[in-house]
Amino acid sequence: MSQFDNVSVLKQANVYFDGKCVSHTVILADGSRKSVGVILPSTLTFNTGAPEVMELIAGSCRVKLAGQNEATTYGAGTSFDVPGDASFEIEVTETLHYVCHFG
Amino acid sequence: MSQFDNVSVLKQANVYFDGKCVSHTVILADGSRKSVGVILPSTLTFNTGAPEVMELIAGSCRVKLAGQNEATTYGAGTSFDVPGDASFEIEVTETLHYVCHFG
Repeated sequence: MSQFDNVSVLKQANVYFDGKCVSHTVILADGSRKSVGVILPSTLTFNTGAPEVMELIAGSCRVKLAGQNEATTYGAGTSFDVPGDASFEIEVTETLHYVCHFG
Repeated sequence: MSQFDNVSVLKQANVYFDGKCVSHTVILADGSRKSVGVILPSTLTFNTGAPEVMELIAGSCRVKLAGQNEATTYGAGTSFDVPGDASFEIEVTETLHYVCHFG
């Protein structure tokens, strides 16, 4: 599914890391929140509050969760899980389009 | 109104100027399309197909339409019109969050 239907979207974006990551918040009919975003080529460390699933729509990246020694490569059509209260290092090798699912 | 309700949003973003401008397409219930986006501090020239209204949600910029000699400053809560088949130069002085209305 290439789009969310019957949702609300906030007009103001979330801008992180000097704009290397830009996302917009989407609220589904059941009240759950997602974000749709882009990460530009860079290596960044994100911290999570709630657990997250990062669903990759386009692009490519290498991801190392806190405590892992080796990075795993992910591309369009794949996703990876991040535990709550954790962090992960992401090296974006090709501009990443993603949906972030929380909780 | 800080959000669009009962809309569809495309998961894949539009990325322009090496990521200086990132937007997501929103489709309203009546089928009309808008985009919600961010422009990072920079000076860029955009070309329009259809006429556009740029509604500024946050940030600040100076805008010079093709043929104008002087730029006009716009900030949050204001908007400016761009004719179709035209261009405008925008100097973003503070990260711009916008809604673009077409047609």
